[in-house]
Amino acid sequence: MKTAEAARLSDEETAGIDAYWRAANYLSVGQIYLLDNPLLREPLRPEHIKPRLLGHWGTSPGLNFCYAHLNRVITARDLDMIYVMGPGHGGPAAVANAWLEGTYSEVYPHVAQDEAGMARLFRQFSFPGGVPSHVAPETPGSIHEGGELGYSLAHAYGAAFDNPGLVVACIVGDGEAETGPLAASWHSTKFLDPVRDGAVLPILHLNGYKIANPAVLARIPEEELCMLFEGYGYRPLLVSGDDPHSMHRRMASALDQALDEIGRIQRAARAGGDAARRRWPMIVLRTPKGWTGPEVVDGLPVEGTWRAHQVPLPNVRGNPAHLAQLEAWLRSYGPGELFDADGRPVAAVRERAPRGRRRMSANPHANGGELLRPLVLPDFRDYAVAAGEPGTTAAEPTRVLGAFLRDVVAANPGNFRIMGPDETASNRLGAVFEATDRVFQGELLPTDEHQARHGQVMEVLSEHLCQGWLEGYLLTGRHGVFNSYEAFVHIVDAMFNQHAKWLKVTRELPWRRPVASLNYLLSSHVWRQDHNGFTHQDPGFLDVVMNKKPQIVRVYLPPDANTLLSVADHCLRSRDYVNVVVAGKQPSLTWLSMDEAIAHCTRGIGIWEWASTGGGADPDVVLACAGDVPTLETLAAADLLRRHFPDLRVRVVNVVDLMRLQPPGEHPHGLPDAEFDAIFTTDKPIIFAFHGYPYLVHRLTYRRAGHRNLHVRGYKEEGTTTTPFDMVMLNDLDRYHLVMDVIDRVPGLGGRVAPIRQRMADRRLALRAHTREYGEDAPEVRDWTWPYGDGTGGGRPDAGEPVPGGAGGAGEEAS
Amino acid sequence: MKTAEAARLSDEETAGIDAYWRAANYLSVGQIYLLDNPLLREPLRPEHIKPRLLGHWGTSPGLNFCYAHLNRVITARDLDMIYVMGPGHGGPAAVANAWLEGTYSEVYPHVAQDEAGMARLFRQFSFPGGVPSHVAPETPGSIHEGGELGYSLAHAYGAAFDNPGLVVACIVGDGEAETGPLAASWHSTKFLDPVRDGAVLPILHLNGYKIANPAVLARIPEEELCMLFEGYGYRPLLVSGDDPHSMHRRMASALDQALDEIGRIQRAARAGGDAARRRWPMIVLRTPKGWTGPEVVDGLPVEGTWRAHQVPLPNVRGNPAHLAQLEAWLRSYGPGELFDADGRPVAAVRERAPRGRRRMSANPHANGGELLRPLVLPDFRDYAVAAGEPGTTAAEPTRVLGAFLRDVVAANPGNFRIMGPDETASNRLGAVFEATDRVFQGELLPTDEHQARHGQVMEVLSEHLCQGWLEGYLLTGRHGVFNSYEAFVHIVDAMFNQHAKWLKVTRELPWRRPVASLNYLLSSHVWRQDHNGFTHQDPGFLDVVMNKKPQIVRVYLPPDANTLLSVADHCLRSRDYVNVVVAGKQPSLTWLSMDEAIAHCTRGIGIWEWASTGGGADPDVVLACAGDVPTLETLAAADLLRRHFPDLRVRVVNVVDLMRLQPPGEHPHGLPDAEFDAIFTTDKPIIFAFHGYPYLVHRLTYRRAGHRNLHVRGYKEEGTTTTPFDMVMLNDLDRYHLVMDVIDRVPGLGGRVAPIRQRMADRRLALRAHTREYGEDAPEVRDWTWPYGDGTGGGRPDAGEPVPGGAGGAGEEAS
Repeated sequence: MKTAEAARLSDEETAGIDAYWRAANYLSVGQIYLLDNPLLREPLRPEHIKPRLLGHWGTSPGLNFCYAHLNRVITARDLDMIYVMGPGHGGPAAVANAWLEGTYSEVYPHVAQDEAGMARLFRQFSFPGGVPSHVAPETPGSIHEGGELGYSLAHAYGAAFDNPGLVVACIVGDGEAETGPLAASWHSTKFLDPVRDGAVLPILHLNGYKIANPAVLARIPEEELCMLFEGYGYRPLLVSGDDPHSMHRRMASALDQALDEIGRIQRAARAGGDAARRRWPMIVLRTPKGWTGPEVVDGLPVEGTWRAHQVPLPNVRGNPAHLAQLEAWLRSYGPGELFDADGRPVAAVRERAPRGRRRMSANPHANGGELLRPLVLPDFRDYAVAAGEPGTTAAEPTRVLGAFLRDVVAANPGNFRIMGPDETASNRLGAVFEATDRVFQGELLPTDEHQARHGQVMEVLSEHLCQGWLEGYLLTGRHGVFNSYEAFVHIVDAMFNQHAKWLKVTRELPWRRPVASLNYLLSSHVWRQDHNGFTHQDPGFLDVVMNKKPQIVRVYLPPDANTLLSVADHCLRSRDYVNVVVAGKQPSLTWLSMDEAIAHCTRGIGIWEWASTGGGADPDVVLACAGDVPTLETLAAADLLRRHFPDLRVRVVNVVDLMRLQPPGEHPHGLPDAEFDAIFTTDKPIIFAFHGYPYLVHRLTYRRAGHRNLHVRGYKEEGTTTTPFDMVMLNDLDRYHLVMDVIDRVPGLGGRVAPIRQRMADRRLALRAHTREYGEDAPEVRDWTWPYGDGTGGGRPDAGEPVPGGAGGAGEEAS
Repeated sequence: MKTAEAARLSDEETAGIDAYWRAANYLSVGQIYLLDNPLLREPLRPEHIKPRLLGHWGTSPGLNFCYAHLNRVITARDLDMIYVMGPGHGGPAAVANAWLEGTYSEVYPHVAQDEAGMARLFRQFSFPGGVPSHVAPETPGSIHEGGELGYSLAHAYGAAFDNPGLVVACIVGDGEAETGPLAASWHSTKFLDPVRDGAVLPILHLNGYKIANPAVLARIPEEELCMLFEGYGYRPLLVSGDDPHSMHRRMASALDQALDEIGRIQRAARAGGDAARRRWPMIVLRTPKGWTGPEVVDGLPVEGTWRAHQVPLPNVRGNPAHLAQLEAWLRSYGPGELFDADGRPVAAVRERAPRGRRRMSANPHANGGELLRPLVLPDFRDYAVAAGEPGTTAAEPTRVLGAFLRDVVAANPGNFRIMGPDETASNRLGAVFEATDRVFQGELLPTDEHQARHGQVMEVLSEHLCQGWLEGYLLTGRHGVFNSYEAFVHIVDAMFNQHAKWLKVTRELPWRRPVASLNYLLSSHVWRQDHNGFTHQDPGFLDVVMNKKPQIVRVYLPPDANTLLSVADHCLRSRDYVNVVVAGKQPSLTWLSMDEAIAHCTRGIGIWEWASTGGGADPDVVLACAGDVPTLETLAAADLLRRHFPDLRVRVVNVVDLMRLQPPGEHPHGLPDAEFDAIFTTDKPIIFAFHGYPYLVHRLTYRRAGHRNLHVRGYKEEGTTTTPFDMVMLNDLDRYHLVMDVIDRVPGLGGRVAPIRQRMADRRLALRAHTREYGEDAPEVRDWTWPYGDGTGGGRPDAGEPVPGGAGGAGEEAS
């Protein structure tokens, strides 16, 4: 590891940086402690102190130290730089710097750069009705809150992609560095193109402690630490110490070295002469935790220990010794030299900040909506699958979508990326490789396909990286899609939660401009993971998503290729949402023409009259479905019902937009009760075949008048390696069981009921036996198609006769 | 990196290992392809081939190669060893070895070690009614399925803790190595005590490819790879090549070096002379993907590329060239030399396997229930909080639990661990440090507290590691608790899902013995993360949990310290469950004496008659609650109702065991309808104050007769840094709003309704204003206690008079 040498900072410059740093530290302490007397014009008294002391001091001086030094290089080099603070609980630091730079007062004019403003700044922090204690959306300059640790570095790289002029400084706490997502994120350089992407400058801050424990990376030999980061592919520069004066010089030197090196790498690559992967610089900053704070409190060491993590002096109101210690601590920064008589930072401090949008707190990349360019979208209707009679031809929906995405990729270089954990081809989006490649900076071999130094597809076997990169990319004003196996998107449940919370708050902040939605495409879903088995079968992400604010979340279950196209176009145009689209990759029947699909998706829910008997009017039973496989089984059940109960009036309802099921008071997409009742009736049995866990439908509809008649089939956590039809049988979602459900719930079906019900049960046994004998589904289920046309012509075949030539076959994919 | 030198294996031994390896490879290919003709007694015909070809070849030869070599060292050194296969999709390999070792036929006698058995072995694999394609619970010798990648190494370390005689060989795929959890898991040596723990031997298998992409670690320079693992603290040994003969010698040498080194480390540490952390050995094995399989198929390279990942010859039934290639491939292993006329492995192959329980497929550590020793549990009643009149004294529930856990720790050395992401003290379980320390092998400093080379508490800032270690520890027959901040347990949603799926399947396998339950203690929960704010507020893990099989999952919401003790004791005694306990750490009122708590927890739900008016009989309204803060607000609402509507008959119901709400057909704990109706009534308004997202209660109760009268308050995704009472107000869960809910739903409350409702609304506004003015909750809510006793004596105070001296104060914790 290279130890940074003392830079030739002038004494004046060193003093200026130090003054800025002291001002930021003063403001950080003030936010944690002070209700009043912000400039210490009078001796500190208990009533100047907040009753609840909430905030994290420990990391703040380190964050401020970096901020002060980054400001120097921004100005000196006219850098376009943003700052991702992994230790986001150091909120006081972020707010302090935004205020010192003037940005805070521009965004929140009532918190002016004067004494009254400083008083408000202090009071509001972590105070009811004020601002959060973390680097939250409310904090100008942030794209990263960091409340849940592990994602800072992935966010930083996401921000850098396709931003060739940007440098993202990212401070990684030594606590966060223990998390899995962060440990994987160091490898992001293997996906960063020095030609078309910007740079990330990671600063690993070893202050030695978490809440109550030493940090792992702070307690291994320096040689080992060095090898670790060299092994990750970096050139680490060490800045270590606790004497401010020499630390300023060392940090300045390290930053200059790092930025020189970044420049060299970029220039060499951009000149076209150097395509080899280079060691990007990083800084290891080792300082005491709670640096410049109280050394000892109540006889116990605080500075440089875990005790500095939050509030070093816990009882300032009640303990005069603590109060005196706080006052001494605050005065140690010399506030009288840092702020003028009005409470405004003195010129020597103010001038340390860069100008205008060069200020990290005002950089538009950290308010990405300001830079958002809408996607150039081809007309999705041009990719439509020709649909003749409904349910007679098959297509692979994600493959059809792939062609659309290929042209989205081609039309939006530098503004659109597809992330996925090694599954873009497996999810049958392979057409995108006609327009782009997978970006990869590792060794390339002649046998590789679609791997290149630049590309708009990013594949790494880490859902955490895919999600983190995409969040960073979106929050800095670009667009993208994350495609994942449905089951394994649970890996990023927690990251989704945090992003949804971030969006929820940003929507309440007028100055935060809308950003592109985070679009999930979940394929290889529960019903067609029959070949990978039980571990790959989990549709529960929808339940996680539906717990978040209705204003943010959208869930779509397009039943076929054309509806998928329509939904995808809608999602790509939307802003500030999380859109979840579940779609199959296996050949499946096309139900709707493009025009019908658009109409259906626009409504989000609808009666399929062509599939209903009696034109769907005055039904005896409602067969509802959501999801591609449930739709197939529902239509096949409708077919069986026509054959066996020709007089039964069956209404078929398909749901694309899951939120339509909720009352309008619960979700903006909620269907008014009158419309819901008109579709589902209030008194007829509803058999609902659902893609996910059946409880979710109950949870969405429990307030509806017809809910007591609702019977939901879905995934009930049964599955293994077997055939597709056996999978639906294992969960009682199959056509025969749906017919049995109808028989069990519709009164007055007449004398033939018992034998028909038995026949359904017998078919299930026979089909299971067939499967176990031959290892594949029987043609009668595999090749079934809808035999009735759309009601405008086609006749009705004889009962019981299988219709050949359909879809639903095996067609396995690697995984 | 040290390249392994050729070992002095005799030619005979090399040939024996090679024969075993070829046999395992033959059996792996046979499982993927063959329906019949297992010994190739006749030329291969299409009807011998499975109709659906499902399985993963690519990783299998590498898994088999390691298995063959591990068998050699097990026998040579009489090792107690298990094998964790990260690339668990290589199920054919695991099954093949278990069959070769005879274990498979012992566990599944119908799959004998003969030709008919081999035919069954082949047919059943990935076949309907057969066994899964992955290393599933059905596979003898496995504690790790690996369907979701990232957890193998954490599982391996978990197995090794407190098993000083065990060596856990863990093969890590280069795909899996890209995941976050795996990237963090390498640091596990910093928590492995060479004295009291066993050893893990990681084998990083670089076969170069994932499904469709090169693997990152396979495409960086070897020097960089070496530094990475030295930086992680290992001594890597490289075994690289594709010539079987020389690779056998290199692998044998590397294993000997690694095991010699493990022995040296352990002996030195156990002799007491060497407490320094040492570099543990690891092996980097670089082989072609799909080694020994088809080199080229249809003109495209397969061996050594991603095309070997799953089924290298995709169309064997339909393409005679593929069929011929498969036959040549199978015959290349020389089945005639490997299996005798009866289809039994020849002696030279059989004798490569270790004996009895030394076989990795039969090692009891991989069926941990066989080794399970029940916990020695102190009498939890001894830790009870003295409860006088209900709701008049306060305790910190997790602190009370901490004393109990301290004695559980002390009574169960080597059999019980507590995992947590740096939060054991923050969650106020600090009493455990009177009995044990936090284990840490990094540098120790004089200022450290409760850090030592051995300890039963494990803290690392990675929920993934905590969960993975604990799973490995439990599945090898030990006990433990994972304590986490409630919001951040979402980080391991996916791991929980996989563990619950594993348990679900093991319960269907009689030979899998029950293991201790996985116990989550979720503290620092949504309602008391008012100081950390919105990112720390998420009670949705309960929703994730409730999607899993009811036979596996249990959720408890003890309302006070004594109920928490009772629940904890119950959970620690249970087997094969996932128990989730949500408990507060802040001072909160004690409602029940220990005897009452036991009775209440045994029922799981009950009417609190002492809190009800009219003795709880024939109520006008039911106030139900689940969770500590909702219970507090509900009781305070009951107090307000007594004051303002003295004639209103209010029934207070508390729910500890959330599954009691479900119908008995849905969950084994489900309350029969008659009992549910008797508690909740079928016709009276129910105002339910719930700890989590309110939908969950609806989802659990929608089939109940009284559901239409149910109104649930819970967390609706509103929160920030504010006071505890403001948090409940933000979500309309506060006492005043509950009273307003009662007023809005109970008919005939008389003429005073409107002014009282207004008074409630005014109180809320006044309290919010108070909070924003003073930064803390008003005494009237903060210090409220239950003023009525338990109905056996205490009188009723005047309406509107606050009762001093209670709980609910701030009491902040670091985080």
